[in-house]
Amino acid sequence: MNFDKITDRRGTHSSKWDKMEALYGLSPQNGLAMWTADSDYETAPCVIEAVTAAAEHGVFGYSWQHPEYLQAVQWWMKTRHSWDIETDWVLTSQGLGNAIALCLDVWSQPGDGAVIFSPVYHEFAHKVNKAGRTVTECPLARDGDTYNLDLDDAQSRLNGTEKLLLWCSPQNPSGRVWTAEELRAVADFAKRNGLILISDEIHHDLVYPGSTFVPMDVAAPDARAWTVTLTAPSKTFNIAGQRTGNMIIPDPDLRTAMRHRQNTLDYDPSALGVAMITAAYSPEGAEWADAQIAHLDGNRKLFDETVNALPGLKSLPLQSTYLAWVDFSGTGMSRAEFIRRLREDAKIATSPGDGFGTGGEFMERFNLATQRSRVEDACRRLTAAFSDLQ
Amino acid sequence: MNFDKITDRRGTHSSKWDKMEALYGLSPQNGLAMWTADSDYETAPCVIEAVTAAAEHGVFGYSWQHPEYLQAVQWWMKTRHSWDIETDWVLTSQGLGNAIALCLDVWSQPGDGAVIFSPVYHEFAHKVNKAGRTVTECPLARDGDTYNLDLDDAQSRLNGTEKLLLWCSPQNPSGRVWTAEELRAVADFAKRNGLILISDEIHHDLVYPGSTFVPMDVAAPDARAWTVTLTAPSKTFNIAGQRTGNMIIPDPDLRTAMRHRQNTLDYDPSALGVAMITAAYSPEGAEWADAQIAHLDGNRKLFDETVNALPGLKSLPLQSTYLAWVDFSGTGMSRAEFIRRLREDAKIATSPGDGFGTGGEFMERFNLATQRSRVEDACRRLTAAFSDLQ
Ligand SMILES: Cc1ncc(COP(=O)(O)O)c(C=O)c1O
Ligand SMILES: Cc1ncc(COP(=O)(O)O)c(C=O)c1O
Repeated sequence: MNFDKITDRRGTHSSKWDKMEALYGLSPQNGLAMWTADSDYETAPCVIEAVTAAAEHGVFGYSWQHPEYLQAVQWWMKTRHSWDIETDWVLTSQGLGNAIALCLDVWSQPGDGAVIFSPVYHEFAHKVNKAGRTVTECPLARDGDTYNLDLDDAQSRLNGTEKLLLWCSPQNPSGRVWTAEELRAVADFAKRNGLILISDEIHHDLVYPGSTFVPMDVAAPDARAWTVTLTAPSKTFNIAGQRTGNMIIPDPDLRTAMRHRQNTLDYDPSALGVAMITAAYSPEGAEWADAQIAHLDGNRKLFDETVNALPGLKSLPLQSTYLAWVDFSGTGMSRAEFIRRLREDAKIATSPGDGFGTGGEFMERFNLATQRSRVEDACRRLTAAFSDLQ
Repeated sequence: MNFDKITDRRGTHSSKWDKMEALYGLSPQNGLAMWTADSDYETAPCVIEAVTAAAEHGVFGYSWQHPEYLQAVQWWMKTRHSWDIETDWVLTSQGLGNAIALCLDVWSQPGDGAVIFSPVYHEFAHKVNKAGRTVTECPLARDGDTYNLDLDDAQSRLNGTEKLLLWCSPQNPSGRVWTAEELRAVADFAKRNGLILISDEIHHDLVYPGSTFVPMDVAAPDARAWTVTLTAPSKTFNIAGQRTGNMIIPDPDLRTAMRHRQNTLDYDPSALGVAMITAAYSPEGAEWADAQIAHLDGNRKLFDETVNALPGLKSLPLQSTYLAWVDFSGTGMSRAEFIRRLREDAKIATSPGDGFGTGGEFMERFNLATQRSRVEDACRRLTAAFSDLQ
């Protein structure tokens, strides 16, 4: 449980490190990978033990979504999120990207619209477009350092084709942790507009002291008939490569529709993915997750202090996620110039803010889930690359 | 590399062992699991090492279908099956059940038909029906111990709705290894009827001395424009629980259609699945696979000798697969009585022959991929259960 232990992911088929050269022109020798949302941490010892035990057993035949797995998911939601779920509400997906795609597939037709509140996880819009649906983008209202809902404005943007609302809670990239009141307002908005509400709660475990995450289903249990919640241990435990997530669907009709689609596609989760989740969602996993958030909290404090000391740059205060959301509008630089300095001078690969939609034009996302020494390195590089702002 | 080392899969969430009680009423204490097609062997040491190495690295972030993986697939097809493929023909699926389901999804509409040659892997018909398509069943012609194609008969059964042909090569459950001539005839049959030919070659590595497997694409390269081949290391290496298989699609249009569908569903293989395949498709993996087939050959000889010594019972000679196909029509017993003896007296869980379609009514499938001592045990149980036939 040492989050400062340096891991070397280069040459391990890590997308974040090993695709950096091709995508950013940054050599793994001196480039710093702060883009794709996985961490550089080893996962929790209990998860590693589950993989080791599988290797020792050595037999990798057919398995299923067994009760111990489903109960572990149930236990986690109860103890970590005060959320009571039934084990039979839990469906397994091939990660949450796949879950979002399946929701689009089941609850909309080509040409239908899906509502998103931007800036938001860039893949929401990509997945909608890839599926031949259209995006109805509703910008969040930025008030200083905070993003708020503006549902009246959102209402005016709808064009009647919308069938789904892709909701991100906590919000990637702003880190916004929504209140129960806000969540209820979103659920009502979905109802008023006849939208299936897909609540993507993948970052729910990565919440900093001072904020409290509330699951949509806890805030708005009345909204069950039109709500699907997506959760996964992939961000929390850094096991996104295993491609295993959960769709939690209390409503029997919605659940039957999704189960039928998965069944038609002959989807079964991998036994190792199931074993890893079962191990992660445990008291040992919880302890590890607590230690991780403390480490991340230190990372973001250091990063924010450094960046906010650079005139014109502002790292917005995060309530959650390990994804710093940096505003460079105060520098007066063009996006091209800011990015040039990041890539050529600082040699840092980040996620382009404008990819997150309206509101991201003068923003950039930095992934802080790494060893402290790498965050320090990033801070030094940024300070040097923007020294003329002093 | 000891195929006789007893593994105890009970309580490991093995479908074959741990669902036997619920599905067959056979206690794991004294029941023998010879149904679902996975083996009781530990996988190849090189595959176990890949899993151990992943556990030691401990970081399970995002990965992709990297060149080493694709080259390993290419190497295997070349060295094991004299089949030259390009790496960009290789798409990854969530196992071959998922691949079949995707093919139905991409190349047919609800109400369309799919052709199968029975008796055949029961899931072909299930998947067709689950997807709301209909099955056109064309029985193979049984001639003594051998199943042959009767394409004239097949032609007469088509009703014009058929869009796909689900072809199993080698054939599960008969173990039939098709000749190049037969394969060409099937490819022509597909062309004549405007069918996309899905050649499921999952058992291609499990071929006994004396028979030679020929990939459809090698036998009928002219058929590329309407052929999709499915392969996987899951049977060969007993890693079906990892849910990773391959669709090999030389034709650019077919490939684009499938890639688009997978992309829309946001499918990415698990990093561990990819690592396991990469490790399996190697010289070490090949050596292990050779040793396995030698062991299986011993199992089937023992089993066939014992069963064929029981008057009225006949285990058909296998050219491939570890799935013995036993004819009990000579006993004069009803299916119910035969099964009663298997379950209640012998306490063996097998795969119901009638599930494989026409031609399976008086047959039962026994999975022989287990330690020799368990095959001996099965032999003793069968001899006792059918001692009155002596
Ligand atoms: C909000 C959100 N949803 C989904 C995902 C992707 O999930 P997965 O890796 O399980 O496909 C991410 C990853 O960054 C995310 O931030
Ligand atoms: C012919 C055939 N195809 C496909 C499968 C299933 O493949 P998977 O486990 O990859 O879904 C089997 C398993 O028995 C099979 O025999």
